[in-house]
Amino acid sequence: MVDERTDPTVGELSEGAILRRILERVGASNAEVGPGDDAAVIATADGRVVATVDTLVHGPDFRLAWSSGFDLGFKAAAVNLADVAAMGATPTALLVALAMPDSTRLSFVSGLAEGLRAACDELAPGCTIEGGDLTVSDTLTVAVTALGALAGRAPVLRSGARVGDTVAVAGELGRAGRGLRILFERFTDAAGVPIPIDERVLDEDERRDLAAQLRPAPPVAFGPIAADAGARAMMDVSDGLVLDASRMAAASDVTIALDSLALAPDVDSALTGGEDHALLATFRSDRPLPHGFRRIGEVLARGEAGVLVDGHAHAGRGGWDPYRDWDSHTG
Amino acid sequence: MVDERTDPTVGELSEGAILRRILERVGASNAEVGPGDDAAVIATADGRVVATVDTLVHGPDFRLAWSSGFDLGFKAAAVNLADVAAMGATPTALLVALAMPDSTRLSFVSGLAEGLRAACDELAPGCTIEGGDLTVSDTLTVAVTALGALAGRAPVLRSGARVGDTVAVAGELGRAGRGLRILFERFTDAAGVPIPIDERVLDEDERRDLAAQLRPAPPVAFGPIAADAGARAMMDVSDGLVLDASRMAAASDVTIALDSLALAPDVDSALTGGEDHALLATFRSDRPLPHGFRRIGEVLARGEAGVLVDGHAHAGRGGWDPYRDWDSHTG
Repeated sequence: MVDERTDPTVGELSEGAILRRILERVGASNAEVGPGDDAAVIATADGRVVATVDTLVHGPDFRLAWSSGFDLGFKAAAVNLADVAAMGATPTALLVALAMPDSTRLSFVSGLAEGLRAACDELAPGCTIEGGDLTVSDTLTVAVTALGALAGRAPVLRSGARVGDTVAVAGELGRAGRGLRILFERFTDAAGVPIPIDERVLDEDERRDLAAQLRPAPPVAFGPIAADAGARAMMDVSDGLVLDASRMAAASDVTIALDSLALAPDVDSALTGGEDHALLATFRSDRPLPHGFRRIGEVLARGEAGVLVDGHAHAGRGGWDPYRDWDSHTG
Repeated sequence: MVDERTDPTVGELSEGAILRRILERVGASNAEVGPGDDAAVIATADGRVVATVDTLVHGPDFRLAWSSGFDLGFKAAAVNLADVAAMGATPTALLVALAMPDSTRLSFVSGLAEGLRAACDELAPGCTIEGGDLTVSDTLTVAVTALGALAGRAPVLRSGARVGDTVAVAGELGRAGRGLRILFERFTDAAGVPIPIDERVLDEDERRDLAAQLRPAPPVAFGPIAADAGARAMMDVSDGLVLDASRMAAASDVTIALDSLALAPDVDSALTGGEDHALLATFRSDRPLPHGFRRIGEVLARGEAGVLVDGHAHAGRGGWDPYRDWDSHTG
């Protein structure tokens, strides 16, 4: 714990002082123009840039009782790195828009900056934080923009799956969803309010579930590997396998048939868990799958259902849709 | 007014339905891969991309009693287009991260999308909305990432001002600050709570002040023009002329001497107003200023003060620092 007497709130500091603290911790710039001017200038060797943005909002996306600043920074980077990887690209730079209440402690901001950097170092070495924005808000919000390089590759879209392709996945399915269940079932009080996590009450497998939820480690390096191996369609699995596979199936006008044996033992979590940030891809079936990917099904001609599990339409929509699932009153 | 019986809240709709509504209104993609996949893929002709992000947060940055969805979208785009222009670049694409309460009306979201597009059409033709993110939040927040192209130019930094340069500005100074004052002084109730704007009580000049605050029209096209004309330093004036000029002076290790005659008639608003989104630049004094720029001072050797007005250090810091100036209780 940080001593609050020596840990000011951001409301007690100038924007410049907060920014200096962040820039000390996010690591060195690797750009032609890095943080500190009106905009960054970043190299794009093949004349194209991959760009995506994803936001984590206090309440629906994380709770401060459960996520440290480090966790939040790590996750905010990781989910965006996964989106770049899902195009077959290598992440090159992040821009971070941070909106926070003026009661936020500086130590939390430092942790967040360290988490952003750690996620880049661990998941996408060479990716650097090249800009951002600080604002005050009643709701702690982190919007990360990730840029990436295709290095001459064709981007791998959701729409490229073809009948006969093998459906494969890199990364874990179901753990992050189980981690979220652990949080709500075991680390809330009688009124449903989040309480601090006590990892001592968890077994090793549960700790890994929790880590997958709080500090996800998507298989970012396997995105370009899949592209080079001829992936025909690829996407980040963020809203649950069934829901995301149904999006790929719709974009490709095919049906994706999943094999539950490949999703064992916790098939239900694997199908509907959400926030996996695994990579779902399809490959020609006459070639070996690239390193890191395992077969979970095959692509069929479009039928009535976009996704089949063991030959049957999957009951229930599965996955997470923030506008339908979150209630600010009950949390 | 939209009939609320036929205007659902976003909480009543799926993410997909909201997204479709937005995509119908932001205009066609101009990218290799536009909205709808994990990330966009955008051309960068000269092997570099300019990138910046800026966030508008309900409370400190806008109030719903004063800003329509259209206004909010327009301003969120405009402030980012100005940052790209300030590097000497032309904006090419926006990514929009939108976090909103589930009570937000769909008509507001439609207006916001139309405002984003209108700002691009009006201020940066050819710039398109190529991606984004939707999340639910208790606090309405719009984080826009803008990308831009330098077309082979060197980026114009804050650090390039040289002794003897002419200091010049494109765009208006002081209007947006006066517009903010009009809002707080004339469109709040006795308790200081924002009330709807009645433009009939304003004269033409006051209406222009208000428009500069709510739908700023920064001189985006003059950014590349300034770069081509040899601008040595340039930046977006967003936090008030004195504060931003002091940043340029510090980055360039010079003193910027401003001439109040060039800022007349409302010198005080011009110096400290904030949210102008004018372009502040310096040019060699032996060449004519490019179209759109007017002289407001000169660059001196670094002295004790970073900024002088009529030869004297300017009293008061001026400008807007969100962490020091906003109080969520008093607004």
